[in-house]
Amino acid sequence: MKLERHHFEEGLGAIKQRLLGMGGHVEVRLTEAVQALMERRPELAERVARGDDEINRLQVEIDDRCLKLLALQQPMASDLRFITAAMKINADLERIGDQAVNIAQNALKVIAQPPLRPLIDIPRMAELALHMTRDALDAFVRRDAELARKVLQRDDEVDNLKDHVFRVLLTHMMADPGTIERALGLILISRNLERIADHATNIAEDVIFLVEARDVRHRNGTEAEG
Amino acid sequence: MKLERHHFEEGLGAIKQRLLGMGGHVEVRLTEAVQALMERRPELAERVARGDDEINRLQVEIDDRCLKLLALQQPMASDLRFITAAMKINADLERIGDQAVNIAQNALKVIAQPPLRPLIDIPRMAELALHMTRDALDAFVRRDAELARKVLQRDDEVDNLKDHVFRVLLTHMMADPGTIERALGLILISRNLERIADHATNIAEDVIFLVEARDVRHRNGTEAEG
Repeated sequence: MKLERHHFEEGLGAIKQRLLGMGGHVEVRLTEAVQALMERRPELAERVARGDDEINRLQVEIDDRCLKLLALQQPMASDLRFITAAMKINADLERIGDQAVNIAQNALKVIAQPPLRPLIDIPRMAELALHMTRDALDAFVRRDAELARKVLQRDDEVDNLKDHVFRVLLTHMMADPGTIERALGLILISRNLERIADHATNIAEDVIFLVEARDVRHRNGTEAEG
Repeated sequence: MKLERHHFEEGLGAIKQRLLGMGGHVEVRLTEAVQALMERRPELAERVARGDDEINRLQVEIDDRCLKLLALQQPMASDLRFITAAMKINADLERIGDQAVNIAQNALKVIAQPPLRPLIDIPRMAELALHMTRDALDAFVRRDAELARKVLQRDDEVDNLKDHVFRVLLTHMMADPGTIERALGLILISRNLERIADHATNIAEDVIFLVEARDVRHRNGTEAEG
């Protein structure tokens, strides 16, 4: 049984809407986790650390909708790439949500102790990771490969910040062992943020493949292939 | 244009073979990364840290084969689940390969310094992560949901070992700040191994969905749904 084109478009639109909704939830969680760390608010960290049932529910629903669309219609090349991209983006968004939970858990340990020092580049990393996620999702919805390429470029900046955070905190720990536990917590948070940027990068690569039918993974998003 | 069933089966078989090949590469890399750490062999760590072009090549090829099969045939429910599971497993295997690279990079820093102490539970974590990956992939090839459930159960053990490694190394760092850098490297390696176990868990969940058409994510692999 084939769906009419009209109904198929509706199906694609519903998937898009739900991915955006999931992206919104994930953004809120990530923002709250970092806010809990910066403003030293354990009750907020605990709420984020408990996870978000709505993200999990959306993940299962989106996969289900994608599979049903794949099953009911024999999609053309570009629709097929859209649906498989949606399934991959779904997985990456859910893992970004998991990382927000991890950040909140690490933040709880950090703020249980006296303030260490300014948080170095962690707020900047968080801002970058958040914008990369938002832009990658926007790029998907607007099928905008140019915006997706901008996301790829920012991944290096996040990696450099992560290395800088690591060096500064390592020096700190060695100079004053009393800071070890807090510094460790911050190092782990910077790794969580790096992983979020990686997931945003995955999404951006999926968008480029969707729009250009060109696999840019392992090519730094630049090299072209037919 | 529809493929004949016979050719379709061939297509599925080719995907299965390549996933197994990729799994083999990933296992070798992971084994070598941990071996480089345990036997203090920088030249081996450097080789693993350079990455594996064959894993990347296979990832792109497998995705391409999956998309072509989806496009050429309107697959039935179970074939559809097989192909989408293959695409997800492909992504997880590639990320396990990335983690092997990260372990090798962290190992290089650890072994650049004098031996710290026995590696606590890290070898045991590595062994578990490796077996989980192997069993998850076997479960996929044999469509064995029971084996996949055993993989899910072992994830908790890895998490517990990770927490134990963290506590022991934290105590160590605080008692002797001269060990901070090495201890940090080992903590990061234990996180890399935990992520590998997470990816193996993802694969196992995909296998259960493939076999039983039942989504066990966010359900600890136990609860049933029609």
